Amino acid sequence: MTPSSLQTIILNLQDFWAAHGCLIGQPYYTQVGAGTMNPATFLRVLGPEPWNVGYVEPSVRPDDGRYGENPNRFQQHTQFQVILKPDPGNPVELYIQSLEAIGIHPRLHDIRLVEDNWEQPAIAAWGLGWEIWLDGQEITQFTYFQQVGGQSLDPVAVEITYGLERILIALNNAASIWDEPWGADITYGQVRRQDEFEQSRYYFETADVIRLRQMYDLYKAEAEACLARGLVVPAHDYVLKCSHTFNVLDTRGAIGVTERQAFFGQMRDMARRVAETWLEQRKEQEYPLLKVTSSQVAGSQVRQDVQPANVQSANFVLEIGVEELPASDLDSALEQLRINVPKLLDDLHLEHGPIRVSGTPRRLAVMVENLAPRQPNRQDLVKGPPAERAFDQDGNPAPAAIGFAKKNGLDPSALEVRELDGGRYVFATVKQAGHPTPAVLVESLPGLVAGIKFDKSMRWLPSSGVTGNLSSVSFSRPLRWLVALWGSSVIPFEYAGLTAGRTTRGLRPYNAPEIDIPDADLYTEIIRKNDIVLDVEERKALIEKGVRELAASIKGQAILPPELLTEVANLVEKPMPFLGSFEEEFLSLPKDVLISVMKKHQRYFPVERQTSKADGTTSDVGRSTLLPYFVVVRNGDSEGLDLVRQGNEHVVRARFADANFFVREDLKHKLEDFRPRLGTLMFQKKLGSMLDKNERIEKLTEALIPMLGLEKDEALFARRAAHLLKADLVSKMVIEMTSLQGVMGGEYARRDGEAPAVADAIGEQYKPVPGTRPGLAVALADRLDSLAGLFAAGLAPSGTKDPFGLRRAAIGVVQTLIEHGINFDLRLALQSAAALEPVPVTDEVQAQVLEFITGRLRVVLTDMGYKYDVVDAVLAVQSENPAGAARAVRQLTAWVARADWGTLLPGYARCVRILRSAPAAGDRAMNVNESLLVEPAERGLHDALQSSAVHHPTSVDEFLTTVVTLIPAINTFFDKVLVMAEDSAVKENRLRLLQRIASLADGIADLSRLEGF
Amino acid sequence: MTPSSLQTIILNLQDFWAAHGCLIGQPYYTQVGAGTMNPATFLRVLGPEPWNVGYVEPSVRPDDGRYGENPNRFQQHTQFQVILKPDPGNPVELYIQSLEAIGIHPRLHDIRLVEDNWEQPAIAAWGLGWEIWLDGQEITQFTYFQQVGGQSLDPVAVEITYGLERILIALNNAASIWDEPWGADITYGQVRRQDEFEQSRYYFETADVIRLRQMYDLYKAEAEACLARGLVVPAHDYVLKCSHTFNVLDTRGAIGVTERQAFFGQMRDMARRVAETWLEQRKEQEYPLLKVTSSQVAGSQVRQDVQPANVQSANFVLEIGVEELPASDLDSALEQLRINVPKLLDDLHLEHGPIRVSGTPRRLAVMVENLAPRQPNRQDLVKGPPAERAFDQDGNPAPAAIGFAKKNGLDPSALEVRELDGGRYVFATVKQAGHPTPAVLVESLPGLVAGIKFDKSMRWLPSSGVTGNLSSVSFSRPLRWLVALWGSSVIPFEYAGLTAGRTTRGLRPYNAPEIDIPDADLYTEIIRKNDIVLDVEERKALIEKGVRELAASIKGQAILPPELLTEVANLVEKPMPFLGSFEEEFLSLPKDVLISVMKKHQRYFPVERQTSKADGTTSDVGRSTLLPYFVVVRNGDSEGLDLVRQGNEHVVRARFADANFFVREDLKHKLEDFRPRLGTLMFQKKLGSMLDKNERIEKLTEALIPMLGLEKDEALFARRAAHLLKADLVSKMVIEMTSLQGVMGGEYARRDGEAPAVADAIGEQYKPVPGTRPGLAVALADRLDSLAGLFAAGLAPSGTKDPFGLRRAAIGVVQTLIEHGINFDLRLALQSAAALEPVPVTDEVQAQVLEFITGRLRVVLTDMGYKYDVVDAVLAVQSENPAGAARAVRQLTAWVARADWGTLLPGYARCVRILRSAPAAGDRAMNVNESLLVEPAERGLHDALQSSAVHHPTSVDEFLTTVVTLIPAINTFFDKVLVMAEDSAVKENRLRLLQRIASLADGIADLSRLEGF
Repeated sequence: MTPSSLQTIILNLQDFWAAHGCLIGQPYYTQVGAGTMNPATFLRVLGPEPWNVGYVEPSVRPDDGRYGENPNRFQQHTQFQVILKPDPGNPVELYIQSLEAIGIHPRLHDIRLVEDNWEQPAIAAWGLGWEIWLDGQEITQFTYFQQVGGQSLDPVAVEITYGLERILIALNNAASIWDEPWGADITYGQVRRQDEFEQSRYYFETADVIRLRQMYDLYKAEAEACLARGLVVPAHDYVLKCSHTFNVLDTRGAIGVTERQAFFGQMRDMARRVAETWLEQRKEQEYPLLKVTSSQVAGSQVRQDVQPANVQSANFVLEIGVEELPASDLDSALEQLRINVPKLLDDLHLEHGPIRVSGTPRRLAVMVENLAPRQPNRQDLVKGPPAERAFDQDGNPAPAAIGFAKKNGLDPSALEVRELDGGRYVFATVKQAGHPTPAVLVESLPGLVAGIKFDKSMRWLPSSGVTGNLSSVSFSRPLRWLVALWGSSVIPFEYAGLTAGRTTRGLRPYNAPEIDIPDADLYTEIIRKNDIVLDVEERKALIEKGVRELAASIKGQAILPPELLTEVANLVEKPMPFLGSFEEEFLSLPKDVLISVMKKHQRYFPVERQTSKADGTTSDVGRSTLLPYFVVVRNGDSEGLDLVRQGNEHVVRARFADANFFVREDLKHKLEDFRPRLGTLMFQKKLGSMLDKNERIEKLTEALIPMLGLEKDEALFARRAAHLLKADLVSKMVIEMTSLQGVMGGEYARRDGEAPAVADAIGEQYKPVPGTRPGLAVALADRLDSLAGLFAAGLAPSGTKDPFGLRRAAIGVVQTLIEHGINFDLRLALQSAAALEPVPVTDEVQAQVLEFITGRLRVVLTDMGYKYDVVDAVLAVQSENPAGAARAVRQLTAWVARADWGTLLPGYARCVRILRSAPAAGDRAMNVNESLLVEPAERGLHDALQSSAVHHPTSVDEFLTTVVTLIPAINTFFDKVLVMAEDSAVKENRLRLLQRIASLADGIADLSRLEGF
Repeated sequence: MTPSSLQTIILNLQDFWAAHGCLIGQPYYTQVGAGTMNPATFLRVLGPEPWNVGYVEPSVRPDDGRYGENPNRFQQHTQFQVILKPDPGNPVELYIQSLEAIGIHPRLHDIRLVEDNWEQPAIAAWGLGWEIWLDGQEITQFTYFQQVGGQSLDPVAVEITYGLERILIALNNAASIWDEPWGADITYGQVRRQDEFEQSRYYFETADVIRLRQMYDLYKAEAEACLARGLVVPAHDYVLKCSHTFNVLDTRGAIGVTERQAFFGQMRDMARRVAETWLEQRKEQEYPLLKVTSSQVAGSQVRQDVQPANVQSANFVLEIGVEELPASDLDSALEQLRINVPKLLDDLHLEHGPIRVSGTPRRLAVMVENLAPRQPNRQDLVKGPPAERAFDQDGNPAPAAIGFAKKNGLDPSALEVRELDGGRYVFATVKQAGHPTPAVLVESLPGLVAGIKFDKSMRWLPSSGVTGNLSSVSFSRPLRWLVALWGSSVIPFEYAGLTAGRTTRGLRPYNAPEIDIPDADLYTEIIRKNDIVLDVEERKALIEKGVRELAASIKGQAILPPELLTEVANLVEKPMPFLGSFEEEFLSLPKDVLISVMKKHQRYFPVERQTSKADGTTSDVGRSTLLPYFVVVRNGDSEGLDLVRQGNEHVVRARFADANFFVREDLKHKLEDFRPRLGTLMFQKKLGSMLDKNERIEKLTEALIPMLGLEKDEALFARRAAHLLKADLVSKMVIEMTSLQGVMGGEYARRDGEAPAVADAIGEQYKPVPGTRPGLAVALADRLDSLAGLFAAGLAPSGTKDPFGLRRAAIGVVQTLIEHGINFDLRLALQSAAALEPVPVTDEVQAQVLEFITGRLRVVLTDMGYKYDVVDAVLAVQSENPAGAARAVRQLTAWVARADWGTLLPGYARCVRILRSAPAAGDRAMNVNESLLVEPAERGLHDALQSSAVHHPTSVDEFLTTVVTLIPAINTFFDKVLVMAEDSAVKENRLRLLQRIASLADGIADLSRLEGF
């Protein structure tokens, strides 16, 4: 077979899409990260006009540069971009046909649609769709655009973005792009490899940060000038230049976390204004491309009348055919149907047998046994107006009654008067004849489908179509067919431009043939005969069995986390597990990296040595040993499996090579050597660079060490960890996979020969709760610095906005302290942090931060299951020491649960309450004058107090144990003694006595906040 | 017929060139003015590696923006770029096949290759080739690159750049691009028109000059940084960004003439270093794409042995087949052949009859009647060593003689001794047998072809090919075939990789069929039968007749300038004149504009009303009236003539629409309103803006008015003209067609209602010699300002460099003064100019300028035909007043031609010479002491001097008329008087007398510089 060439693929795709009615366009004349930025997409998807286009886009992503060393990762790759607007109804099928046009036959490969919620904040755009995988390799991005430039799209546009290099590699079953043909006997490498090397050197090493920042500013100013004159395309050009320049700065590592937000905000704002201006223009021009097209008609059919059908019960099946659902949406949809279907049938008064709900990514199936042929006839009693208004003095019906009777289709004489809630009303008994099941379902099934809700749902239909207003139709992914059969009869309900019938579709790898279901009874059998495993649990079981067997076959055991198993089961209709392998040399990579790539990126099951404990979790895999294997689950059968395996292995190899590249590059330096470069990474404009932050963390750690009571060597470790804490942020591996921040720092520290405790402290800094005390110290310092600094910079979270994760930081602070059980004075610690910030952190700001942390503490404690009032009672007095507060809450909760709480609390409460109701006539905190204690009961109380074991309790337990001993005396006191004596000296003295009791709670809890106080 | 669409054209061209072995590439990701800038051309044409590529390039040329109003001119157009390296031997034929592939059949159109010497100074590149015209429209640029990035190309690369919009217009016979299909039922206008409008507004009105200058500087700095690290492609990217930014600045009118040079210099320098670095890289990589290709073999044939042939004389024909020669190169080549062929045949001692040399753009033909069958036998006497060394004392041959004899193929006994120039030498009589004509010609014809030289010639072959070293082969355009027949025999000489045969090629419109010539006798007849008019004069006559008849047919008469007639005759092989017309409304455009477009751009013959005088020149067309017609000369017959006519009319319409756009835009403002914007146009960094220059001109004009003796109203006109002088430089029409500078200013001034004299003065400012005195004043001021300022700024011309045209300025100064005959003190005027400059113009600099002007004056006068010594004699004493000097030269020339000059000059010279030889003993300028005049002859001389009519002559005539009267007395004086008397007082007195005679020439001429003095 002649190998494919890049240019043949391009020429074929151009021909294919031209033949399918697309305009063929050209790449854009300024560097873009994706074909989406080309105005042929960015602008043309806006507004009501149809637009179908295909074009090549060499896409430039500086931080993907690998010096030409990686087999399929490069700073420039070649996209083929297709836009179909409106949705033609079968875009996935068209796409698969286009793959066939370039030689990819679905039967011989594993083509998978993997959920991808695409978002491009720089242009205020998002959409839902998939990565399309070919044998584990992402070859295409397929998206239903929902918003672009901040504008909701109507109609929605389908974007198909092919990654041509990856397709070429797959077609030629190659290990690397470099030796594959471009065309004319010239390889891809001969055309592009030197470029890759040079551009990588430019983007990573050479680009001048100061000059690029100036360029960005100039571009932004030009964009603004163009916008001010309504010049859409020139403005857009400059927004694109901003975007590319930002990407270069980012690749140079010159963009800090908070600065990034500012850049995105600016670019998004410009993009939105570009989009708005374009839309206004098109409107003024009366949408030149808007013609009545027939494409919207495609989905609609002639409405069928409901046939008279069975008079006996019959099985019912509903299949909702959909483009590949995200794994979690499939779960959620099935769950909803399991609740909603019985409820619906009950509401409809339709009798039925067992209900089963199953599904795959492409179909949601509801199977109801023995669904009754019709609703039973029913009588409903309907309440009308009050009796006195319903009849006149002669007992004749008044207008109110006449109207009510008419509304219910009755003669007024049929109305009755009944009593209800102490009033007398007119009632009508309305008889409802039961309707036949088909008629009922035709009306109600649309609501069933519409009632399925998703966290993220999308539109794909134009808001107004031939079949009426469709603007309310949304779903997780587009609905493409509906099967509704009651026995052998079709229930032809309509929804989303579709009419239900009896035709379902087969497996994608089998070319998704149309399959007719003659009768609901045959549904399950036919589906199974077509190789589809309808039941989620069955798929899971098949996968688990297969994965375990395959792992065992190479003397390993699979890492089988349940959430991965669930996800994979939801990605296929027919699971087919198989084994893949990779080069042993990659095992030298940090294990976190390997597992992260296999699990997270590829949805593979990693395999480890059998010796280690396999509990199905990854919690302690960090210490076990991986084998160079993994298990993939294909959608389909074993046809062409070798090709599929090779494809998947190639992907893993490329990804590991990529990681290898980063780690190797990073290991050329000690972790400490990275530290100075933190100076180029902005943390936040007012708060300086990451280096500044790191230095503040060091100083703050120093201050926290005594506060946390660290031992001498713990202190040494903490100091060293603080010094190196953020260095990994400028390492290549972390720049590439941000999720490995900290982890890589720890790894590199270990490899540098730092003390294990130092490496651990660095490695766990981003964990919610660091496990070691040095780790606790540096993590606290980091978080308190962020809180103090960012609040002072005016960047406190507001509403749903929390771009800097300050809520998470605050929660981390309190959780850590609670779990380590260390008493800690947050107020004091914040003062230390505040003193180190480069901006003034006023007392007021510090108070805000404390209040904010208290709020998180409240959430943490209630999330732990403690009652709100208990939490409140404690936090009212000791919010600034989370560990203490947690202890107090725990103790108080136990007290509240005690049998004698019902006497304990009221006794104490009486002391407190009377103090509150009596106007203060002096200082009640003064000592009790024993000579004024005249009544025995008050003497008794005083004595009890004096003899109690603890006079200044420091915990809830101490406090309440004391109170318990006082309760008899308290009760006697209130029985026998009139506190409010006429002699005001006596009265005040008694109040002072009670004050001493009330004050036992000082600094521990405010019991008045408790229920029943 | 379905109309063609842009995307069909692109897809077809991609397929065509892919099928012909080209890599298919993509447009570049940064704005470029042409596909040439794409590294797939710019870099890949360098070095020895083969490279064949085709790609689309949307090319951005800001100053071509027309707000979407022009039918085929836009700031962005779509190129299809093809590079063939090395030259495949038939690139023009391949190109024509590619046109057929997109539906253009040469038989139905007029496809013309019109000389174009392509040059892109910003990237230090040049090449020779053609614009390819389709029915008068340039649709393709076809170039043999000679240099790129300052590097000579070896092998040469062929660049073919299609202009797709124009091709689309032509294919659909459309009037405008906007409604033509792009594809998918969408028109070009629907895709691009709004862009055009907006980008035009951006480039012409919005782009911020200060920001763009900053961008340029940043790009340049990044390019330098990349170069410093050897990063070729990133550096090139920034050079391209510089280039685009420069173009935008230029479009904003922000670049002055001298500043432009600086920008170009910078960009050229960077481009050169990019190219050098690339070449080094490729060399280090050992030229990865270099393989032994068979393409170089294509042209060579098996070498034929020369056949024994005629023994009788026979006619000889040589046809040199060539790709379309530039018109002037055709003339030059024919002229050289007319001289070189007879010379060659004489040198070869080949007898022959009449020789005829004729040619067309594609063939140079030499026809020799009755060329003898062989050279005659000859005897040559060859001189050997001196006789005394040739023989020993015994008369036996010495080694010297033996060697000499052997060298000449003789026995020593055959040597003779003869006398020569007084010496005795050995001689050999060498008999040379004449060789047969075919053998002689095979050896000598290569030299004949190689001997044809051109002003600009090109290489197209690799320097080393299979047929040996070809590095010396160059020609005006590539040689493609050779016919050499002597009678019926082929003379198979080899040159430039070709072997001569009997096959010629027919007309391009007939698909250039191969045609065999059986016998030299039939050559002319066969050529004629194939519709080729071989003779230039015959073509001219056919054209002239046709043009006149067509003009007469619409009651007009053609403007038929001889140089245009010659050029057009040299552009076709078969001339076919036809009439085209344009809309009358365009006649409202300035006539200079219309004629310039038709003649210069299109090579059409304009037609004017019959009433005006038609002398075949355009010198006074400015006042006659044009008709809306023109005559085009097609290459071919009348097949499809309507299509061709429509095409040509469309082109003219578009060009006029373009001019109309500019003029209309310009006329929205008064000329005076343009003036302030001159401030944005840099004249030269040190000398300020064009506004600064204009203001200096105004002041200098004021100073010159009295010096030139202008009348009162002339002075008013001059002042006003000076005020408006440069304003048109920022008008759109002049920015577009620089050659109309001044002309448009005059036109606009007239339309603004300025006095006609003011408009004339502005209009003629750039003419070598302004015709009016106000025009003279402002032109002088302009030129003196440039000379003083630029010399002071260190920008005097050096060597062949004269970027500011200062030679032309200086020549203008002297010619104008001479033609107007105004005495003028250049030294004084320069002082005034110097005082106005913003930089110091030292006395030394002023002296340099004066000397420079004197140099030009010398050239002007000698160019006028005056003898060098006469010019010298005058300029030695009066160089600072050109008019006076010219007058003196004219008079002196007349005197020198007089019959009595032979006595006149010696007489005067005796006086001067004796003064020089006598050491000065006092002040000879003192009066003669009459009392010391003792000899009659000296008294006589004194008296003659006293009685002469003029004592202080002010012109040559006065001076020499006086001298004539003195000659007898002078002669007598010298005969009778001993000047060098012993009495020193007497002697000095006599010398004083002679001094008075000598001094008559003071301030007029230094006759000692004359021949014969």
